[in-house]
Amino acid sequence: MPSIDVCFSPELLHLYELKGKAVVAVDVLRATSTMVTAFAEGAATIFPVMELEECQSFAARGCLTAAERNGIKAEGFDLGNSPFAYMDGNVQGREIAITTTNGTRAIRLSEGADEIVIGAFLNLQAVADHLAELGLDVLVVCAGWKGQFNLEDTLFAGALVERLQQQFSYEHDSALAALYLYQNAKADLLSFLRQSSHVRRLEHLEIFKDIEFCLRHDAYNVLPVWREDRLVDLRVLKLEI
Amino acid sequence: MPSIDVCFSPELLHLYELKGKAVVAVDVLRATSTMVTAFAEGAATIFPVMELEECQSFAARGCLTAAERNGIKAEGFDLGNSPFAYMDGNVQGREIAITTTNGTRAIRLSEGADEIVIGAFLNLQAVADHLAELGLDVLVVCAGWKGQFNLEDTLFAGALVERLQQQFSYEHDSALAALYLYQNAKADLLSFLRQSSHVRRLEHLEIFKDIEFCLRHDAYNVLPVWREDRLVDLRVLKLEI
Repeated sequence: MPSIDVCFSPELLHLYELKGKAVVAVDVLRATSTMVTAFAEGAATIFPVMELEECQSFAARGCLTAAERNGIKAEGFDLGNSPFAYMDGNVQGREIAITTTNGTRAIRLSEGADEIVIGAFLNLQAVADHLAELGLDVLVVCAGWKGQFNLEDTLFAGALVERLQQQFSYEHDSALAALYLYQNAKADLLSFLRQSSHVRRLEHLEIFKDIEFCLRHDAYNVLPVWREDRLVDLRVLKLEI
Repeated sequence: MPSIDVCFSPELLHLYELKGKAVVAVDVLRATSTMVTAFAEGAATIFPVMELEECQSFAARGCLTAAERNGIKAEGFDLGNSPFAYMDGNVQGREIAITTTNGTRAIRLSEGADEIVIGAFLNLQAVADHLAELGLDVLVVCAGWKGQFNLEDTLFAGALVERLQQQFSYEHDSALAALYLYQNAKADLLSFLRQSSHVRRLEHLEIFKDIEFCLRHDAYNVLPVWREDRLVDLRVLKLEI
């Protein structure tokens, strides 16, 4: 039986073996939720990059550019990090380069894994189905907040453990903790999260609507995966083959 | 109102400012539980050191030496890491040098803090009282297991947050998570922990009795604190003054 484990911060990633594993990279508020939304809205490709300057350089290749730092859209870019900014038909068929404070870092640091899947509550079941089909050991990599543990990514990890608990073993301490926290909080994730100073800081940035949206389970049947140097939607890829 | 926060691994310690804070270093299974026991049994001083060789060198100074690696007593040392080995009058009035896989590392990496207190369930209330009296912001530093998150240290952190929740703010995500996990588990900590592969690994080393003992709350009214280059029991220090 394959196992599912949880890494609470990219700063702890060096303690884990990635080779032979499927990584689920998650930054619920908001990078991976926004990426999932972008694919659901027809984006062709997403290039997650770590630095603002590199991201900007993608404009010359005809890409849309998206950037967030400290919860706020960075100046001089086409888009920020709110899923709602990707919903008015503007990303249909487009390539997007994106850099965010935490999420893109978690993705790029996971490159040693056999498979990297982009996870969010929005595509939870699509991710769970893909992992069950792959049958590899799974490591959920939480983006956290500037390297620190955060609740929302942990709750996603717990939700994924819950969905996979029949097919995967989950006896590592972090997976058990994530599962317990999720099972306690799932009746009202929003109230649970609003106790956190981190989430209240995000709320002050007037993204309350975003937070509510990012906690919706299974809104989209999309499956962003890392291929060579970019993210593509595996569902679309399979339809094309 | 001062705050209480939790760092889940020494590997994340660089993300926190230690200056101006009181750190509680915790390695429930078993380093800090054993240190608390040693002081309760009359040990005069404990030198927590990171390397086996350094620890061995303290023998020439007339110290007892104690060493554990991977859960097992290291060869050539007087003592291991089981609290029961410190209970037959052998540590009364003695200086002890100790090195363990995780606990001593957490202590030494916290040296930038204004105060370092050694915490365990065994001296939980003594630690809580001291922190309330100090009034500094608190950071609980969990030793974890080889840098990874572990449940038992997290549960101790949650227990401490619970004891201090009237006098300290606790809105950081890690403190909230620790508190929730503790409140869920406290009715039967042992059963909760036995789901964990890490704790089951320790059980295989025949230290089940140790684990049960290390989960006892408030068994000892001792308060090991870091002074210059060593740990001393602040309760004894105060009596002597």
